[in-house]
Amino acid sequence: MRRRLDMQLDELNELLTHMGELCQVAINKATKALKNGDVSQAKKVQKADMKIDQIEKDIESLCMKMLLEQQPVARDLRQVSAALKMITDMERIGDQTSDIAEIVISENITESMELVELTQMAEAAGKMVKDSVRAYVNQDLSLTRKVIEADDEVDRMFVENKKELVEYIAKDKGKHGERAMDLIMVAKYLERIGDHATNIAEWVEYSITGIRIEGN
Amino acid sequence: MRRRLDMQLDELNELLTHMGELCQVAINKATKALKNGDVSQAKKVQKADMKIDQIEKDIESLCMKMLLEQQPVARDLRQVSAALKMITDMERIGDQTSDIAEIVISENITESMELVELTQMAEAAGKMVKDSVRAYVNQDLSLTRKVIEADDEVDRMFVENKKELVEYIAKDKGKHGERAMDLIMVAKYLERIGDHATNIAEWVEYSITGIRIEGN
Repeated sequence: MRRRLDMQLDELNELLTHMGELCQVAINKATKALKNGDVSQAKKVQKADMKIDQIEKDIESLCMKMLLEQQPVARDLRQVSAALKMITDMERIGDQTSDIAEIVISENITESMELVELTQMAEAAGKMVKDSVRAYVNQDLSLTRKVIEADDEVDRMFVENKKELVEYIAKDKGKHGERAMDLIMVAKYLERIGDHATNIAEWVEYSITGIRIEGN
Repeated sequence: MRRRLDMQLDELNELLTHMGELCQVAINKATKALKNGDVSQAKKVQKADMKIDQIEKDIESLCMKMLLEQQPVARDLRQVSAALKMITDMERIGDQTSDIAEIVISENITESMELVELTQMAEAAGKMVKDSVRAYVNQDLSLTRKVIEADDEVDRMFVENKKELVEYIAKDKGKHGERAMDLIMVAKYLERIGDHATNIAEWVEYSITGIRIEGN
């Protein structure tokens, strides 16, 4: 017969996967909203962020219940504590997508705009989030490594974006100035999403190995 | 004889005031670090953020203890729940000062720079944080109003900063481009600090009046 703790760990995995999916969807929606200046889409992102906050609370309650009722030890205990840390990072990811949405809502865009670099950055950050949660569910150390390495690429994209946006402003400050200033903040939020995904990957490594690597 | 709950509420007020002070000091230090490109000062801000995270946990524990042991009702209950909300906003303020510090650390500044507007914005945001906590301790509804009004001024400063930084880049992209891109993010963080102080003020109003105003 399976332990009650194992069933609860399965439930925890499902909730974490779901939270990770919500984050990924929020990142995609926020990027689309930004691309098209779509305010109603942006408002949906903010609603998704509230859902992410709610599922964080659900996972927190489940973890507390597991800790109190089952008093897990060793790897089980590490898995629960890693989950508690991971949801903090995922909740911040939700906040950052909501920050991007806020920029879309407060902007006054009349034309859609080509945002190849930023879209790629959003895709890369979204993939990091997805992979970090998959690494937790499958307890996959090679996948955590991939996430941590991918962060360098996202950081590089951020620097590139910054340079491009400076060129943009220098070319025509009246036309591009305000928009470029908004976009650099969006790029910064995406870069932070990459940092949070890296944190998640590091917590997954801890849950598997028991060794905690210094985060960023 | 005073109720045990009143003594605990006093303790809660002291801790909240202390947390508010730590936030204010962090904002000041982060601004100074930014002004002088002072990396060691910036690292102190990040340490202060860890202290803020710790005191958040202390206040959370105290609130939980009060809720479980004393089962407060009406205004007492509102005060405890408002405190729980306020510390989330203060913790985010700490994060934002740490984000500013991170920018200072990752920058490569060789010269100090005149940042009149940004310094004023930091002062205004810091004052909002201080006043919002003072309003809680003194249960002062006129002070919460002042905080909420001050946020419009901080928002206005943010827009001004954005315009100035665009001019900066347009003037000499090679010399000012990268720095200006960093500074707009700092301005954004300060603007968010203003939002969090506004949230705190709104929670204080709720704790006094029982009416919750829509936050931003």
